[in-house]
Amino acid sequence: MAGNLFAGLPVVPEAAESMEILLAQPGLRIERIVSGGQASPPGFWYDQAETEWVLLVSGEALLRFEDESAARRLRPGDWLCIAPQRRHRVEWTAAAMPTVWLAIYGTPAIKDEAVVIAP
Amino acid sequence: MAGNLFAGLPVVPEAAESMEILLAQPGLRIERIVSGGQASPPGFWYDQAETEWVLLVSGEALLRFEDESAARRLRPGDWLCIAPQRRHRVEWTAAAMPTVWLAIYGTPAIKDEAVVIAP
Repeated sequence: MAGNLFAGLPVVPEAAESMEILLAQPGLRIERIVSGGQASPPGFWYDQAETEWVLLVSGEALLRFEDESAARRLRPGDWLCIAPQRRHRVEWTAAAMPTVWLAIYGTPAIKDEAVVIAP
Repeated sequence: MAGNLFAGLPVVPEAAESMEILLAQPGLRIERIVSGGQASPPGFWYDQAETEWVLLVSGEALLRFEDESAARRLRPGDWLCIAPQRRHRVEWTAAAMPTVWLAIYGTPAIKDEAVVIAP
Protein backbone atom coordinates (compact mmCIF):
# COMPACT_ATOMS: atom_id res chain seq x y z
CA MET A 1 0.00 0.00 0.00
CA ALA A 2 1.13 3.50 -0.82
CA GLY A 3 -0.35 6.94 -1.33
CA ASN A 4 0.06 10.63 -0.81
CA LEU A 5 -1.47 12.52 2.12
CA PHE A 6 -2.39 15.42 -0.16
CA ALA A 7 -4.12 13.31 -2.81
CA GLY A 8 -7.85 13.72 -3.26
CA LEU A 9 -8.27 16.51 -0.74
CA PRO A 10 -11.83 17.76 -0.54
CA VAL A 11 -12.52 21.32 -1.52
CA VAL A 12 -13.11 23.09 1.76
CA PRO A 13 -15.25 24.16 3.48
CA GLU A 14 -17.25 20.92 3.52
CA ALA A 15 -20.06 19.94 5.84
CA ALA A 16 -18.15 17.12 7.51
CA GLU A 17 -14.61 16.06 8.18
CA SER A 18 -13.31 13.23 6.02
CA MET A 19 -11.45 10.27 7.44
CA GLU A 20 -9.53 7.52 5.70
CA ILE A 21 -7.89 4.52 7.34
CA LEU A 22 -4.40 4.11 5.90
CA LEU A 23 -3.36 1.10 7.99
CA ALA A 24 -5.16 -1.13 10.44
CA GLN A 25 -3.55 -4.10 12.11
CA PRO A 26 -3.68 -5.51 15.63
CA GLY A 27 -2.49 -2.82 18.02
CA LEU A 28 -2.09 -0.07 15.41
CA ARG A 29 -4.34 2.13 13.28
CA ILE A 30 -3.28 5.04 11.08
CA GLU A 31 -5.79 7.54 9.77
CA ARG A 32 -5.76 10.62 7.57
CA ILE A 33 -8.32 13.15 8.73
CA VAL A 34 -9.13 16.25 6.69
CA SER A 35 -10.87 19.16 8.37
CA GLY A 36 -12.07 22.33 6.72
CA GLY A 37 -13.47 24.61 9.35
CA GLN A 38 -15.05 21.96 11.55
CA ALA A 39 -14.68 21.86 15.32
CA SER A 40 -15.86 19.42 17.96
CA PRO A 41 -19.49 20.03 18.95
CA PRO A 42 -19.97 22.35 21.94
CA GLY A 43 -19.32 20.49 25.18
CA PHE A 44 -18.03 17.39 23.40
CA TRP A 45 -14.75 15.83 24.58
CA TYR A 46 -12.89 12.96 22.96
CA ASP A 47 -12.15 10.35 25.62
CA GLN A 48 -10.33 7.39 24.10
CA ALA A 49 -9.03 4.09 25.39
CA GLU A 50 -6.15 4.24 22.90
CA THR A 51 -2.98 6.29 22.88
CA GLU A 52 -3.29 8.83 20.07
CA TRP A 53 -0.24 10.37 18.43
CA VAL A 54 -1.37 13.11 16.12
CA LEU A 55 0.51 15.24 13.58
CA LEU A 56 -0.82 18.36 11.92
CA VAL A 57 0.48 17.92 8.38
CA SER A 58 -0.98 21.05 6.80
CA GLY A 59 -3.44 23.77 7.70
CA GLU A 60 -4.00 25.05 11.22
CA ALA A 61 -6.03 24.08 14.28
CA LEU A 62 -6.70 24.78 17.93
CA LEU A 63 -6.67 21.72 20.17
CA ARG A 64 -7.80 21.95 23.76
CA PHE A 65 -7.16 19.56 26.63
CA GLU A 66 -9.73 19.63 29.40
CA ASP A 67 -6.92 19.82 31.97
CA GLU A 68 -5.38 22.93 30.37
CA SER A 69 -6.86 26.41 30.50
CA ALA A 70 -5.91 27.45 26.97
CA ALA A 71 -6.12 25.72 23.60
CA ARG A 72 -2.90 24.86 21.79
CA ARG A 73 -2.39 26.31 18.34
CA LEU A 74 -1.11 23.65 15.96
CA ARG A 75 0.80 24.45 12.79
CA PRO A 76 2.34 22.15 10.16
CA GLY A 77 4.81 19.72 11.70
CA ASP A 78 3.35 20.06 15.19
CA TRP A 79 2.66 16.74 16.90
CA LEU A 80 1.13 15.73 20.19
CA CYS A 81 0.85 12.50 22.09
CA ILE A 82 -2.53 12.17 23.77
CA ALA A 83 -2.58 9.67 26.59
CA PRO A 84 -5.54 7.28 26.89
CA GLN A 85 -8.53 8.93 28.59
CA ARG A 86 -7.04 12.41 28.41
CA ARG A 87 -10.04 14.43 27.39
CA HIS A 88 -9.55 16.80 24.48
CA ARG A 89 -11.44 18.56 21.72
CA VAL A 90 -10.79 20.46 18.52
CA GLU A 91 -11.79 24.07 19.16
CA TRP A 92 -11.19 25.34 15.64
CA THR A 93 -9.72 24.44 12.26
CA ALA A 94 -8.90 26.74 9.38
CA ALA A 95 -11.80 27.19 6.95
CA ALA A 96 -9.81 28.63 4.05
CA MET A 97 -7.67 25.53 3.43
CA PRO A 98 -7.79 21.83 4.26
CA THR A 99 -6.23 20.87 7.56
CA VAL A 100 -4.65 17.45 7.15
CA TRP A 101 -4.08 15.38 10.28
CA LEU A 102 -2.20 12.12 10.57
CA ALA A 103 -3.56 10.22 13.58
CA ILE A 104 -1.88 7.10 14.91
CA TYR A 105 -3.73 5.00 17.45
CA GLY A 106 -1.92 2.44 19.56
CA THR A 107 -4.49 0.10 20.95
CA PRO A 108 -3.87 -0.87 24.56
CA ALA A 109 -2.32 -4.24 25.17
CA ILE A 110 -5.00 -6.72 26.15
CA LYS A 111 -3.30 -7.89 29.32
CA ASP A 112 -6.45 -9.49 30.66
CA GLU A 113 -6.41 -12.12 27.94
CA ALA A 114 -3.50 -13.95 29.48
CA VAL A 115 -5.26 -13.86 32.86
CA VAL A 116 -8.34 -15.47 31.38
CA ILE A 117 -6.26 -18.20 29.78
CA ALA A 118 -4.20 -18.96 32.88
CA PRO A 119 -5.61 -21.69 35.11
CA MET B 1 4.71 14.97 24.92
CA ALA B 2 4.65 17.38 22.00
CA GLY B 3 7.00 18.82 19.42
CA ASN B 4 7.47 19.88 15.83
CA LEU B 5 8.94 17.64 13.14
CA PHE B 6 10.90 20.55 11.70
CA ALA B 7 12.45 21.64 15.01
CA GLY B 8 16.18 21.27 15.45
CA LEU B 9 16.88 20.02 11.95
CA PRO B 10 20.57 19.43 11.31
CA VAL B 11 22.29 21.53 8.70
CA VAL B 12 22.77 19.15 5.79
CA PRO B 13 24.82 17.51 4.43
CA GLU B 14 25.86 15.72 7.63
CA ALA B 15 27.96 12.59 7.94
CA ALA B 16 25.15 10.49 9.38
CA GLU B 17 21.39 10.37 9.46
CA SER B 18 19.79 11.50 12.69
CA MET B 19 17.04 9.54 14.40
CA GLU B 20 14.80 10.50 17.29
CA ILE B 21 12.21 8.29 18.97
CA LEU B 22 9.00 10.29 19.41
CA LEU B 23 6.92 7.53 20.99
CA ALA B 24 7.69 4.03 22.18
CA GLN B 25 5.13 1.79 23.82
CA PRO B 26 4.34 -1.92 23.57
CA GLY B 27 3.51 -2.67 19.94
CA LEU B 28 4.22 0.80 18.58
CA ARG B 29 7.25 3.00 17.93
CA ILE B 30 7.32 6.34 16.15
CA GLU B 31 10.58 7.84 14.90
CA ARG B 32 11.68 10.99 13.14
CA ILE B 33 14.57 10.32 10.79
CA VAL B 34 16.45 13.13 9.06
CA SER B 35 18.57 12.34 6.02
CA GLY B 36 20.80 14.74 4.13
CA GLY B 37 22.27 12.93 1.18
CA GLN B 38 22.75 9.54 2.83
CA ALA B 39 21.77 6.26 1.22
CA SER B 40 21.84 2.67 2.43
CA PRO B 41 25.32 1.13 2.05
CA PRO B 42 25.88 -0.73 -1.26
CA GLY B 43 24.28 -4.16 -1.13
CA PHE B 44 22.53 -3.46 2.19
CA TRP B 45 18.83 -4.29 2.54
CA TYR B 46 16.59 -3.53 5.49
CA ASP B 47 14.80 -6.72 6.52
CA GLN B 48 12.56 -6.07 9.51
CA ALA B 49 10.29 -8.16 11.66
CA GLU B 50 7.97 -5.15 12.15
CA THR B 51 5.46 -3.54 9.85
CA GLU B 52 6.85 -0.15 8.88
CA TRP B 53 4.60 2.68 7.74
CA VAL B 54 6.73 5.52 6.50
CA LEU B 55 5.89 9.06 5.41
CA LEU B 56 8.20 11.41 3.58
CA VAL B 57 7.42 14.71 5.30
CA SER B 58 9.86 16.96 3.46
CA GLY B 59 12.76 16.61 1.03
CA GLU B 60 13.05 13.85 -1.54
CA ALA B 61 14.25 10.25 -1.69
CA LEU B 62 14.48 7.11 -3.79
CA LEU B 63 13.30 3.94 -2.05
CA ARG B 64 13.87 0.57 -3.64
CA PHE B 65 12.18 -2.74 -2.88
CA GLU B 66 14.22 -5.82 -3.72
CA ASP B 67 11.17 -7.31 -5.47
CA GLU B 68 10.76 -4.30 -7.76
CA SER B 69 13.03 -3.40 -10.66
CA ALA B 70 12.95 0.36 -10.21
CA ALA B 71 13.23 2.61 -7.19
CA ARG B 72 10.22 4.70 -6.16
CA ARG B 73 10.67 8.45 -6.01
CA LEU B 74 9.15 9.84 -2.82
CA ARG B 75 8.05 13.43 -2.47
CA PRO B 76 6.42 15.26 0.46
CA GLY B 77 3.21 13.56 1.56
CA ASP B 78 4.13 10.22 -0.03
CA TRP B 79 3.69 7.26 2.30
CA LEU B 80 4.35 3.55 2.00
CA CYS B 81 3.50 0.54 4.08
CA ILE B 82 6.38 -1.93 4.18
CA ALA B 83 5.34 -5.43 5.19
CA PRO B 84 7.52 -7.37 7.63
CA GLN B 85 10.50 -9.00 5.91
CA ARG B 86 9.97 -7.09 2.66
CA ARG B 87 13.53 -6.15 1.81
CA HIS B 88 14.12 -2.52 0.91
CA ARG B 89 16.82 0.14 0.83
CA VAL B 90 17.19 3.88 0.45
CA GLU B 91 18.95 4.47 -2.86
CA TRP B 92 19.29 8.22 -2.54
CA THR B 93 18.18 11.22 -0.51
CA ALA B 94 18.44 14.90 -1.44
CA ALA B 95 21.71 16.49 -0.33
CA ALA B 96 20.63 20.10 -0.64
CA MET B 97 17.93 20.00 2.02
CA PRO B 98 16.95 17.80 4.97
CA THR B 99 14.70 14.88 4.12
CA VAL B 100 12.40 14.32 7.08
CA TRP B 101 10.83 10.88 7.46
CA LEU B 102 8.17 9.82 9.91
CA ALA B 103 8.51 6.09 10.51
CA ILE B 104 5.91 4.11 12.42
CA TYR B 105 6.72 0.57 13.47
CA GLY B 106 4.04 -1.85 14.54
CA THR B 107 5.64 -4.67 16.41
CA PRO B 108 4.18 -8.07 15.63
CA ALA B 109 1.69 -9.40 18.12
CA ILE B 110 3.36 -11.89 20.45
CA LYS B 111 0.84 -14.65 19.99
CA ASP B 112 3.12 -17.24 21.50
CA GLU B 113 2.85 -15.66 24.93
CA ALA B 114 -0.62 -16.96 25.56
CA VAL B 115 0.46 -20.41 24.41
CA VAL B 116 3.27 -20.44 26.95
CA ILE B 117 0.92 -19.42 29.74
CA ALA B 118 -1.75 -21.95 28.87
CA PRO B 119 -1.48 -25.28 30.73
